[in-house]
Amino acid sequence: MPEDALPAAVEAELRSFFASRREQTERVDGHFAEAVRTLESFVLRGGKRVRPRFAWWGWQGAGGDPAGYSAPGVLRICAALELIQACALVHDDLMDSSATRRGHPTVHTEFAARHRAAGWGGDPERFGLAAAVLLGDIALAWADDMLRTAHLSPETTAGALPYWEAMRTEMLGGQYLDVLTEVRGDESPESALQIDRFKTAAYTVERPLHLGAGLAGATPRLIAAYSRFGQDIGVAFQLRDDLLGVFGDPAVTGKPAGDDLREGKRTLLVAHALRRADATDPAGAALLRGALGRELDEDTIDRLRLLLVELGAVQEIEDTIEALTERGLAALDTEVIAPVARIELRQMAQAVATRSS
Amino acid sequence: MPEDALPAAVEAELRSFFASRREQTERVDGHFAEAVRTLESFVLRGGKRVRPRFAWWGWQGAGGDPAGYSAPGVLRICAALELIQACALVHDDLMDSSATRRGHPTVHTEFAARHRAAGWGGDPERFGLAAAVLLGDIALAWADDMLRTAHLSPETTAGALPYWEAMRTEMLGGQYLDVLTEVRGDESPESALQIDRFKTAAYTVERPLHLGAGLAGATPRLIAAYSRFGQDIGVAFQLRDDLLGVFGDPAVTGKPAGDDLREGKRTLLVAHALRRADATDPAGAALLRGALGRELDEDTIDRLRLLLVELGAVQEIEDTIEALTERGLAALDTEVIAPVARIELRQMAQAVATRSS
Repeated sequence: MPEDALPAAVEAELRSFFASRREQTERVDGHFAEAVRTLESFVLRGGKRVRPRFAWWGWQGAGGDPAGYSAPGVLRICAALELIQACALVHDDLMDSSATRRGHPTVHTEFAARHRAAGWGGDPERFGLAAAVLLGDIALAWADDMLRTAHLSPETTAGALPYWEAMRTEMLGGQYLDVLTEVRGDESPESALQIDRFKTAAYTVERPLHLGAGLAGATPRLIAAYSRFGQDIGVAFQLRDDLLGVFGDPAVTGKPAGDDLREGKRTLLVAHALRRADATDPAGAALLRGALGRELDEDTIDRLRLLLVELGAVQEIEDTIEALTERGLAALDTEVIAPVARIELRQMAQAVATRSS
Repeated sequence: MPEDALPAAVEAELRSFFASRREQTERVDGHFAEAVRTLESFVLRGGKRVRPRFAWWGWQGAGGDPAGYSAPGVLRICAALELIQACALVHDDLMDSSATRRGHPTVHTEFAARHRAAGWGGDPERFGLAAAVLLGDIALAWADDMLRTAHLSPETTAGALPYWEAMRTEMLGGQYLDVLTEVRGDESPESALQIDRFKTAAYTVERPLHLGAGLAGATPRLIAAYSRFGQDIGVAFQLRDDLLGVFGDPAVTGKPAGDDLREGKRTLLVAHALRRADATDPAGAALLRGALGRELDEDTIDRLRLLLVELGAVQEIEDTIEALTERGLAALDTEVIAPVARIELRQMAQAVATRSS
């Protein structure tokens, strides 16, 4: 299929999977089925389908044939990644107390609002919490169900399972590390990078590539090349995300301006800025430390942005993105990756490094 | 294996599964590995292994041979049920704000305490929430991984998958219904029963039996017999649990006395009591409605217990347990269930109906 058709194909798979579950959820209860429809809407309006895309091209890079008999099942597994991602986002938004995602209320916010609108008893936030926990669980459980409905041969699936399993554990481990680093007040660039490696690079790029490669029975050499590419491009992806979290246009990112500062995220950008400010600009360091994780007005956000630029932290991150992208791209220069996928992965890496949303 | 050996065998499987994950979690981060050890302790000290037991005997009832070559894999799948249960309990305790479970602090309480003891930044409760969400997710994801490590033939596993999948969805749907019923102030016995059917009967008895039966390639007749038995015994199990939640001995149940009243659980016991009180004892109805979900002292709990007895609600639940147990046991009187399992399931049903913890 042409590259642009992938998101639509992924969404069709997700749509058909949710449709196949409707009778079962209705049988439990109409209200439960309604809650699951909220999850479905969340999944269907979601994002750029980055993980399915890496998995799909990881598969073709390992010799997978998009016109072959395995392709529909592989597509199904690629789409299942979006259910893992739905769990990650719904639970992450709950843990971060984020109010919006992709320009819509987050799941816990949405259910708290329904509680309020209906005038139900008890605490609306607590109801929002419960709904978000349970719908995230549904997404996670159904991801495995969807993997199984791919109906590939057991041998084909077996090649991908170690990567599927590693990916889920690394994502959840990276999330835990993220939360822990924040409460411990760990400002080191090393900790920020370690979170980026697991929470983003492994989960978003490296393991999806491996998953696709595993479905095509890839060699250890190809797996290693994907690791080099995936780790570098994956960290670059997160660093771009960090810059967008501070400097991104809300109309494009779907998140409030400077949201990462308000949430107090300990990104590599912030780690570099603090280290530089501690050395040269104690007042700036105090300003930044005092502001992170607070409710901030537009003026303060503008001051913080300027500070991050003036400290040289933004340039340092841009340089790192460039260096990582270059090194990641070099890992594609191997004949073990099928040429069509090499071209595609190169484009995706460049898009990841320069994207605006 | 003798009936008494099952919990130890299940625990050995769980222990070996967690051991197999240690290298992976350490590679993400030592702190993450430490958090996972807390989950492991939670899983290993846990309960009566009711679900694995029903699955194991469901399998033997369908002709599974405990001395045969499939037995180790079947045992592994039975043990995987405890990981689903760990997710259910960790997330349920979080949603209910329960402080203790099995005589220990709940996971979110434990991590909030660690946060406090370490003097970390931010809100201890929020850290506890994040840890509980993520460790519950790990348990849910690893349940599927553990299912796959059973290494049964794809044909054998395929027979059980529809039940495995239904079980997870029904459990989560039942939990959602439970939360929703509470906030909606729905006091009807019908709603209480519907929650019992999915959250407990399907999840705890019927689907585990089906899972075991599916692994032995059971006939539709056997599946139907297990449904009749499982739904009745499963609801009886929950009704006994409801009585223990109000009248149970804390030393035996591991939960504070009258905990369900403090949590304001809308059980069938409470639904019957309210309906009876509305008809005959308005002051009692007001007392009960006013007390549910509040912090209650021992005297008030004693008054409420007496009220539940005097209203006849306790007797009504006891009668229902007896009727359900009788009808459930009658479903065992069929030659499609292997005799050894019939004896065992009969004993388990009676234990469930009369247990004290």
